[in-house]
Amino acid sequence: MDEVHKVCVRFHTAIELLGARWTGAVLRALFTGSHRFADIKAAVPNLSDTMLSQRLRELEAAGILERHVMATSPVRVEYELTQMGKEVEPVLDAVIAWSHHWIPLAVGDEDDSASHPESATGS
Amino acid sequence: MDEVHKVCVRFHTAIELLGARWTGAVLRALFTGSHRFADIKAAVPNLSDTMLSQRLRELEAAGILERHVMATSPVRVEYELTQMGKEVEPVLDAVIAWSHHWIPLAVGDEDDSASHPESATGS
Repeated sequence: MDEVHKVCVRFHTAIELLGARWTGAVLRALFTGSHRFADIKAAVPNLSDTMLSQRLRELEAAGILERHVMATSPVRVEYELTQMGKEVEPVLDAVIAWSHHWIPLAVGDEDDSASHPESATGS
Repeated sequence: MDEVHKVCVRFHTAIELLGARWTGAVLRALFTGSHRFADIKAAVPNLSDTMLSQRLRELEAAGILERHVMATSPVRVEYELTQMGKEVEPVLDAVIAWSHHWIPLAVGDEDDSASHPESATGS
């Protein structure tokens, strides 16, 4: 048993945070810049308003994104990654590379590898 | 809206699989080699038997690990990562590096960075 080392508390906290249902998809949508609620929702298939609201609140509380309220008329609200959030990108890049190697395309899915040049190079 | 690209189906499948509660911790325990149920459980704080059983079944069904039953007396059962499972390591390394930068140590936690040399080098 002693050869199995204890799982680090910080690692565990991080993966529970980043691995929460939909969080990876929401972060991925935000890597392209700050976006409005409706735009993030449109980028993530099958994500409900309620679930997106909850994830955005959690990510804001964790310091991963910021909510900007612009004093326009009507008011415009955008969500933007903080530096902490931007630095999640290598994690998601690693997930993309792994998924393109190991997760089969379902019949009817388009091959979207052209939109992920970072995984096409193999690294 | 058109600047937010659709989240890739394979990426989404992968992160839902790898991000499931406890999965990262279970995988991390298995990177050191094949282990018995009780050893994996001991490596992951607060993980129940029921939840560990469920995760191991899911990971086996996904092709990430294999269950080996050894014809000893008493029978010995070990769980071992497949190649697909072993190649998750860069994902978890990226999570570790990120967590050591951004997730604060709780008061009373030991600093375990010495046990994660891959994150201590920065990179």
